[in-house]
Amino acid sequence: MRMRKKKWAEPYLEAHGEYALSDPKEYKGRWKEILNGRELHVEIGMGKGDYLIRMSEMYPEDAWVGIEKDRNAAATACRKMLEDESCSQNNNRMIVADGAYLADWFAEGEIDVIHLNFSDPWPKKYTHKRRLSSEKFLNLYKQLLSENGCVRMKTDNKGLFEDSVLYFLENGFTLTEFSVDYRRNEHPEDAVTEYENRFMELGQPIYLLKAVAAPIQKIG
Amino acid sequence: MRMRKKKWAEPYLEAHGEYALSDPKEYKGRWKEILNGRELHVEIGMGKGDYLIRMSEMYPEDAWVGIEKDRNAAATACRKMLEDESCSQNNNRMIVADGAYLADWFAEGEIDVIHLNFSDPWPKKYTHKRRLSSEKFLNLYKQLLSENGCVRMKTDNKGLFEDSVLYFLENGFTLTEFSVDYRRNEHPEDAVTEYENRFMELGQPIYLLKAVAAPIQKIG
Repeated sequence: MRMRKKKWAEPYLEAHGEYALSDPKEYKGRWKEILNGRELHVEIGMGKGDYLIRMSEMYPEDAWVGIEKDRNAAATACRKMLEDESCSQNNNRMIVADGAYLADWFAEGEIDVIHLNFSDPWPKKYTHKRRLSSEKFLNLYKQLLSENGCVRMKTDNKGLFEDSVLYFLENGFTLTEFSVDYRRNEHPEDAVTEYENRFMELGQPIYLLKAVAAPIQKIG
Repeated sequence: MRMRKKKWAEPYLEAHGEYALSDPKEYKGRWKEILNGRELHVEIGMGKGDYLIRMSEMYPEDAWVGIEKDRNAAATACRKMLEDESCSQNNNRMIVADGAYLADWFAEGEIDVIHLNFSDPWPKKYTHKRRLSSEKFLNLYKQLLSENGCVRMKTDNKGLFEDSVLYFLENGFTLTEFSVDYRRNEHPEDAVTEYENRFMELGQPIYLLKAVAAPIQKIG
């Protein structure tokens, strides 16, 4: 969502360039080592960063990277992260740039989990190619995911979810988890953001899928 | 759903054995010829037959067969069919038996579309194997579907739908259509039954999937 321009945003991002990275090519292939993480989680389109911050607190043993191209949202996320006393910043970073450049920052097979949370649905047909679950992105993810790596996608948007299920299947992913009302069951292992909570309060279902880039095979 | 035993049901089914077939082995491989249909549609678990009757009226060029093991429901369906003046009975039949015997009545590759409408969700884990979308049935369907044949499944049950999506994928089907709220768009081509209408009036979403027994490939 587009935000009002914040005057403090640019100076803030500049002042905290060590957390709000703009083009972290030098991290490529070394994220887990630098952030001392067991698994590398990347959230594309982190918005104001609530999910990223909560999850990096909940899973300090993993490395967490959030990407956001909106500089105002990213500045808000960065400030939240730095002001949050329970957030150590040892295991997380933010990239303030367009997710389309993912392959510049991550090596092949480096990412364990890609998170897409309430991504822009781009509802008009001619804009579908900008969706973070569109073919161009899925090919990028396949390249960067580790052997058992996966994409976890949550959304409240019916059209985006319906189309995305087909995008994943058409592009060689297999679904391993799938819900049409994810939050009807408790998932204490997965942070609920304010944004998500709003939908839950309205009684709107949250859709979830987890997809692995692997040939179809018997599960369980 | 279990119905109260109807006294008239058994005599009615006996009296109309030419429509309410019990073990139509002699039709095997000849359904399209006998019913003079372009495509063969089979609904497993037709209940009281509303969908089957409406669809066979809407698509007189196709052959329609409904299967129901509950003899009271099947008798009601048969009576509705025979009393419905706009239903010709030239292109439809009912089979009053358990769908598990499908391969006794249909030849390999004979069925074009299998319809599963609001099937029993069998919610308890130890009963999942009775679901009409469970592995045993999917293997049966694969055998009996024509080259471009498909299964169309509609349900209001979240758990059944979520599990079924994975069952289909695990068993070598590809999804070609998929909706988490099918009736939010008009589908005049697809009959709404009274049963379905009840959910729509309650604002409960109808889930739909269409699956073909074919390797994953690019669609559209």
